[in-house]
Amino acid sequence: MNDFEINPLYKIMHPKNIAFWGASSNSMSMGSIQLASLLMLGFEGNVYPIHPRDKEIKGLKAYSRISDVPEKVDLAILVIPTAIVAQVLNECGEAGVKRAIVVSAGFSEKEGTEGKELQKRIVEVADSYGIKFLGPNCIGVVNSYLKLNTTFNPYDAAPGFIGMASQSGSFITQMFGHLSKFGLGFSQALSLGNEAMIDLSDCLEYLAQCPKTKVIALYIEGIRRGRHFVEIAKKVSKIKPIVSYYIGGSEAGRRAGQSHTGAMAGPDRLYDGVFRQCGIIRANSIEELFDFCYVLGTQPLPQGNRLAILTHSGGPGAAAADSAERAGLKLAELSPVTLKALAPLLPYTASVKNPVDLTFAKNLNDYMATLPRILLKDEQIDSLFLYCLMPQQRVMLGVLGTGQGLEQAQQIVSEYVKGQSAIAANLSLESGKPVVGGTFGDRSELFVRELQDRGMTVLPSPERGVAGLGALYRYSKWRKTFS
Amino acid sequence: MNDFEINPLYKIMHPKNIAFWGASSNSMSMGSIQLASLLMLGFEGNVYPIHPRDKEIKGLKAYSRISDVPEKVDLAILVIPTAIVAQVLNECGEAGVKRAIVVSAGFSEKEGTEGKELQKRIVEVADSYGIKFLGPNCIGVVNSYLKLNTTFNPYDAAPGFIGMASQSGSFITQMFGHLSKFGLGFSQALSLGNEAMIDLSDCLEYLAQCPKTKVIALYIEGIRRGRHFVEIAKKVSKIKPIVSYYIGGSEAGRRAGQSHTGAMAGPDRLYDGVFRQCGIIRANSIEELFDFCYVLGTQPLPQGNRLAILTHSGGPGAAAADSAERAGLKLAELSPVTLKALAPLLPYTASVKNPVDLTFAKNLNDYMATLPRILLKDEQIDSLFLYCLMPQQRVMLGVLGTGQGLEQAQQIVSEYVKGQSAIAANLSLESGKPVVGGTFGDRSELFVRELQDRGMTVLPSPERGVAGLGALYRYSKWRKTFS
Repeated sequence: MNDFEINPLYKIMHPKNIAFWGASSNSMSMGSIQLASLLMLGFEGNVYPIHPRDKEIKGLKAYSRISDVPEKVDLAILVIPTAIVAQVLNECGEAGVKRAIVVSAGFSEKEGTEGKELQKRIVEVADSYGIKFLGPNCIGVVNSYLKLNTTFNPYDAAPGFIGMASQSGSFITQMFGHLSKFGLGFSQALSLGNEAMIDLSDCLEYLAQCPKTKVIALYIEGIRRGRHFVEIAKKVSKIKPIVSYYIGGSEAGRRAGQSHTGAMAGPDRLYDGVFRQCGIIRANSIEELFDFCYVLGTQPLPQGNRLAILTHSGGPGAAAADSAERAGLKLAELSPVTLKALAPLLPYTASVKNPVDLTFAKNLNDYMATLPRILLKDEQIDSLFLYCLMPQQRVMLGVLGTGQGLEQAQQIVSEYVKGQSAIAANLSLESGKPVVGGTFGDRSELFVRELQDRGMTVLPSPERGVAGLGALYRYSKWRKTFS
Repeated sequence: MNDFEINPLYKIMHPKNIAFWGASSNSMSMGSIQLASLLMLGFEGNVYPIHPRDKEIKGLKAYSRISDVPEKVDLAILVIPTAIVAQVLNECGEAGVKRAIVVSAGFSEKEGTEGKELQKRIVEVADSYGIKFLGPNCIGVVNSYLKLNTTFNPYDAAPGFIGMASQSGSFITQMFGHLSKFGLGFSQALSLGNEAMIDLSDCLEYLAQCPKTKVIALYIEGIRRGRHFVEIAKKVSKIKPIVSYYIGGSEAGRRAGQSHTGAMAGPDRLYDGVFRQCGIIRANSIEELFDFCYVLGTQPLPQGNRLAILTHSGGPGAAAADSAERAGLKLAELSPVTLKALAPLLPYTASVKNPVDLTFAKNLNDYMATLPRILLKDEQIDSLFLYCLMPQQRVMLGVLGTGQGLEQAQQIVSEYVKGQSAIAANLSLESGKPVVGGTFGDRSELFVRELQDRGMTVLPSPERGVAGLGALYRYSKWRKTFS
């Protein structure tokens, strides 16, 4: 077994089989829905519902207690009343179960001492049997490669490269759909809840080891073991980028976070310092968290901060340029060789400067291939932002105008779009430089879908694309200090 | 004729018929594509292509000169080489055409004096015949209610309430798809180009008069008649909200803008002051421009800055709370009456504070109806942010679990979603207070589509929803100084 496999979280994320408490014949209960969602994704190991009375749940044979289950169980999932969690953990311990996810709430996140006492009690029980559990008051985990989804929302995104640890439970479930909007998905996602036995730092170590995870996303309401976290994060960020969204910065956010998982938040500036010290890239919104993960998980590190912008619409190009400074990037000066190479390809109304604006393209093919290749060869350019709008309807009107029938024209346009996407998606790989696209379109358009699915990083606006490249540059500076 | 109809822009935006220069048998030329796009939307007036040789273009009878056209023409559209624009304007003048859109580029936006001289010349010609033209170097206009789209991209959004004037030409065309993502559209959109005869201030006056326009969006690279603009904008913003995106703030943005339409940009702070002085709400990105327009064009003005947040997922609720301060809002203290009314409706794991977090909803119906209504009745609450996630798949799993067949279950869920959307969409109207939703879903989901189409304002993240409410509050303060 390698380091990854001996990590306490490994068996939680890679169970061979699962015993499930809290599903019943009441199909609308949280437990029942979590079990349905687990089965829906197609987890391939055995699943054993445990229920005092029901004999069959969701088509599975149910057992009245864990000791009746005919094989050794890797993982227990508990979606049961607070009061009986300790007892069930005890039964798990007796049956040799070593890992658990405690979804049940009503522990230390509640005001007063009762919940805190209860939490202490379940940790004691777990400790006495060598059990490690995630939670309580968490929503479970996703391992998309193992078709494992213990949360209450069906996982409808693809298996992906973003590993996430979240101090908000349902947060990860809300993101399934958000990631789908880019054709992205989680590699692993963990909801931490009250972190009674497994905390953010543990998850960070685990995700660093996970081979499917290229970038780590953290949703933070408050860090518990500060020094330990800094130590771990410093190590991890040298090998994998970490992007954090910290919610406790404002008084309002802090209050919201506290009532939610009971974590202690600190002043925004303090966290800013911690993140900086650890090489963690900070995101200022949920959208930004995943925008940054998208770029940092896919793009090679730039050599410097000199950005080229290629556009065929002035406004989005200017917006990209305007946001470069805010993103910590500067507009590259194009070299004389580049200027000379570009000039004949641009219409006389276009600017031969950075942003390079093709305006109304004479030859659309240049836009996705010749022009970006010229820019990426320029040694004065470290990264490229490409405004991505395929004027597909315009191309269609043009093709129809040549007398093609509708079906044939659609075929021609579709092939054309696919070909252009393939070329654009390869730009970063062939140049070794980061290339990020921005578009106001979405995956309902063939072009955006093709680009993203062929591996090009495309964000939903010029500003967001450039901000992503800025985050990548900040991470490259951190990495450079260790090379 | 009312003020609106005597505005020089009225006939440009409401022509009875159009003469079109620049379309030809070459279907891929810009002119041909603009004409195709005009015909595609279904403009109902006569369209007369003018071409020296071709006898038929896009199925329309072509005329070799304007003087041959059998009726008086309201609007000339010129997509022709720079050098012959003056001559064609001359012919238009002789034929009694009083309005034109000059798409042709190569005028004052070019470096050197030649283009500037040419522009001066065409203005002289126009003046001598009493012609008013938009441009040159612009992309044309959209009047969605008249099915008028003179740009090169097909208009695929709905007729809407956002009136836009843009100093970037193709910018408006890029936004057709963006607005569609929210079920929104332009009422009127104008691309200004070099503003030789009609400038931003003129458009502002026009859009203020336009009855279909509820909010005005400006894309600004540089303002030409500063004092005049301030004077007009001050008047207009008292009756309609104006949202501006200014691109010239950074050195990079300024350079990009200059090369683009030749407008002079000023320091960011200067523009900030101008906007503040005029009651213009400033947006810091293209996304924000339309987010703000969406909220300001649909929501009643709040009485103050006290925000309530309703969520059933902790993370998005905390993110909304965290962004409230940045948006200039504060979290409302819930009144004792509200606290008492909420308590029995929330599960015991939920917080009875603001954000109100239902967590895993026992009764989903409460979320969209009972709970927001209680909050909106509270006199200590001025506006409401509602996190919008319909756990549709979760509901589906639940309904399927009751033994319903797939088809029937889908029907039940779909009716349920529609019913809930109808209730939520009515919250603002029945309370008279602004209500904005935020979601990570999109219009591919029935719930989001239903909410938006029934009139609820739903933005793509909690932070963006709250930022929109912040902009609305800033506008309400401006309006209060005059009431």
